[in-house]
Amino acid sequence: MEFHANRTALLEKFNTVAGAISPNSPVAELSGILLEAFDDHLQITGSGTDLSIQTLMYPGELTGLNIQEPGSIILDSRLLIELLRKLDGDSVKIETMDHSMARISNDGGDFTLLGKPGNTYPDIDLTRPDTHIILTGKQIHEMVSELSYACAEKETRLVLKGVHMRCRDGIVQCVATDSYRLAMKTLDLNPEEEFKVTIPKRSLLEAAKNLPENTEEPIDIYIGRKTIQFVIDKTLIQSQVYEGTFPEVQRSIPAQFTTRIEIEPHGLIKMLDRACLYKEDKPVCSITCDGKELRITAKNDTIGNSEQSFYDFTFEGQPISMIINGVFMLQALKAIPAEKTVVMEFKDGFSPVKITNPEDDSVVMVVVPLRAGA
Amino acid sequence: MEFHANRTALLEKFNTVAGAISPNSPVAELSGILLEAFDDHLQITGSGTDLSIQTLMYPGELTGLNIQEPGSIILDSRLLIELLRKLDGDSVKIETMDHSMARISNDGGDFTLLGKPGNTYPDIDLTRPDTHIILTGKQIHEMVSELSYACAEKETRLVLKGVHMRCRDGIVQCVATDSYRLAMKTLDLNPEEEFKVTIPKRSLLEAAKNLPENTEEPIDIYIGRKTIQFVIDKTLIQSQVYEGTFPEVQRSIPAQFTTRIEIEPHGLIKMLDRACLYKEDKPVCSITCDGKELRITAKNDTIGNSEQSFYDFTFEGQPISMIINGVFMLQALKAIPAEKTVVMEFKDGFSPVKITNPEDDSVVMVVVPLRAGA
Repeated sequence: MEFHANRTALLEKFNTVAGAISPNSPVAELSGILLEAFDDHLQITGSGTDLSIQTLMYPGELTGLNIQEPGSIILDSRLLIELLRKLDGDSVKIETMDHSMARISNDGGDFTLLGKPGNTYPDIDLTRPDTHIILTGKQIHEMVSELSYACAEKETRLVLKGVHMRCRDGIVQCVATDSYRLAMKTLDLNPEEEFKVTIPKRSLLEAAKNLPENTEEPIDIYIGRKTIQFVIDKTLIQSQVYEGTFPEVQRSIPAQFTTRIEIEPHGLIKMLDRACLYKEDKPVCSITCDGKELRITAKNDTIGNSEQSFYDFTFEGQPISMIINGVFMLQALKAIPAEKTVVMEFKDGFSPVKITNPEDDSVVMVVVPLRAGA
Repeated sequence: MEFHANRTALLEKFNTVAGAISPNSPVAELSGILLEAFDDHLQITGSGTDLSIQTLMYPGELTGLNIQEPGSIILDSRLLIELLRKLDGDSVKIETMDHSMARISNDGGDFTLLGKPGNTYPDIDLTRPDTHIILTGKQIHEMVSELSYACAEKETRLVLKGVHMRCRDGIVQCVATDSYRLAMKTLDLNPEEEFKVTIPKRSLLEAAKNLPENTEEPIDIYIGRKTIQFVIDKTLIQSQVYEGTFPEVQRSIPAQFTTRIEIEPHGLIKMLDRACLYKEDKPVCSITCDGKELRITAKNDTIGNSEQSFYDFTFEGQPISMIINGVFMLQALKAIPAEKTVVMEFKDGFSPVKITNPEDDSVVMVVVPLRAGA
């Protein structure tokens, strides 16, 4: 194998596939980046237990790619990236000395890296799944920023660590829940196919990382029973999906409410943030509202008490009093896309509270209260 | 105790004294900030095992200080700082509810914090030591940036973890060494007194943190047998000093050299940085120079080899070949204040190499080579 390429362009590709690699993978080959030079393009692959990223590079002005000799090798991802980062100069040459050693060189010097033969890399099945949908980069970023906070961190039920996406009757609904809070987003597309899939949070973050934040560019997504693929320009991100049934969440959202509070979210976020200082194990906050005063209190035997009041909101219905995990409430308010006001709806002090943006009902946040005295 | 003050000004003071506090101090009182309100000023103290910081606040437009009732209390530093940081509003009121509880309040709400009575705070002896010298803020920053890298990190000889300052015959010399490398700076002052003192690296960093970087403002420093005090405006930083004899370093610097290389440092730094990727336990680099080519090589059985050459330098004397810890050499070159060129002087491949700026001989760096084959 022998090729020249633009150092920065190559580094960007290496960084992309490194997102899938666990440096301390028990399979030594998987801690490396697989470089495969073909006659007319370079294929770069990184894989971990549930995520694989493969990207292609073609000759061109930006890539500076010029392949002299096809071939392949696996090189340690951390060293390869560090070395390319620390090198000077625009161009770099990478060539294999034998099957398990590469020489990386430019004006700065000659560097050899011991690696492993390309043909020892584990077989990664990148077969394209059947179901096809299209999302924009912006929609994928929104799924991350609006939903992923509600995924379970430590959870025996694996499915709760992912974002569930379900298409039924032409509606795509995305849900994350750790069973104490829930974030749900309805997407504005009309796919013809019906499917459901639970995407690991980490894979969604990795896909978003490779996308500019506000792009309306369509991203092809292929969904199968075992894998999901995101195709972003010349890069393929494939993730295992979580098998198992995702809970039916619709029924955990109260259908009727007795109290409605419409409030500017930023002041409320700051109040909750301060109240959450008074925590030991859980940040237990009490929220009460009699229609005129919204009061947030928190107390802790070893720290002290906090009492804060807010008067600027509109109110309909019955007075309400609720004990809640302040951090869960805080995260829901931070994640909901609402600049001006949010609506909080309560059924009673023991039923989940629903948070929405009155100007856009595509995102719904739900927080389950703590039991009184918990 | 009861006072009002500007929230930001108070937060700045709390952050200053927090630099001395270990949040998990075995003496519970010392994990707190001691607030003492007197008739005309507020005194704020934080202390750790070897560092104490005390700062004063007086009424004025910037501080907004207004003391209604003298008194004192100890409050948890982390909580106090977090709460003040998260509060809105310009002004804040702090008052004691009883000897061990304070109420912190402003428009945002009421917050109580449990604390400890002020009179339970350990006695901190802040007696001013006798010997007085004056350094500028810039000189203290330079001591940190030019010398502190050479202090020992893990060392049974405590003195090597500090910067040694010695005044003899009107010359102030500051030295740091871990016995493998050495950094020495001669200061341009003519104190009348003779003294020597070893200042813990951490205390020097803390003093520097409280000083703007390029100030020519004089800082009063008081040096005693057990303590050193830096007086920065209304803040007193007192540190224990290391007792014990600091090694005589002068004799470890060769007096005569057979090879002199004058070289632009930045290219050399980049080369060493790349060579240091090839390390396992120690970054072993070989430096050879025959007068025309300066060659840096590093090799590692599990990673590979690197070979780099540099041709742009001036050379006098004998060819040289040396095995050296690449990171030690790198740190010395990064720390020496020299933009254009540095001079490296060698006696032979086994004697320490001396690095200086040809335009300013006040700073000297010395690196001891590794034994051949080490």
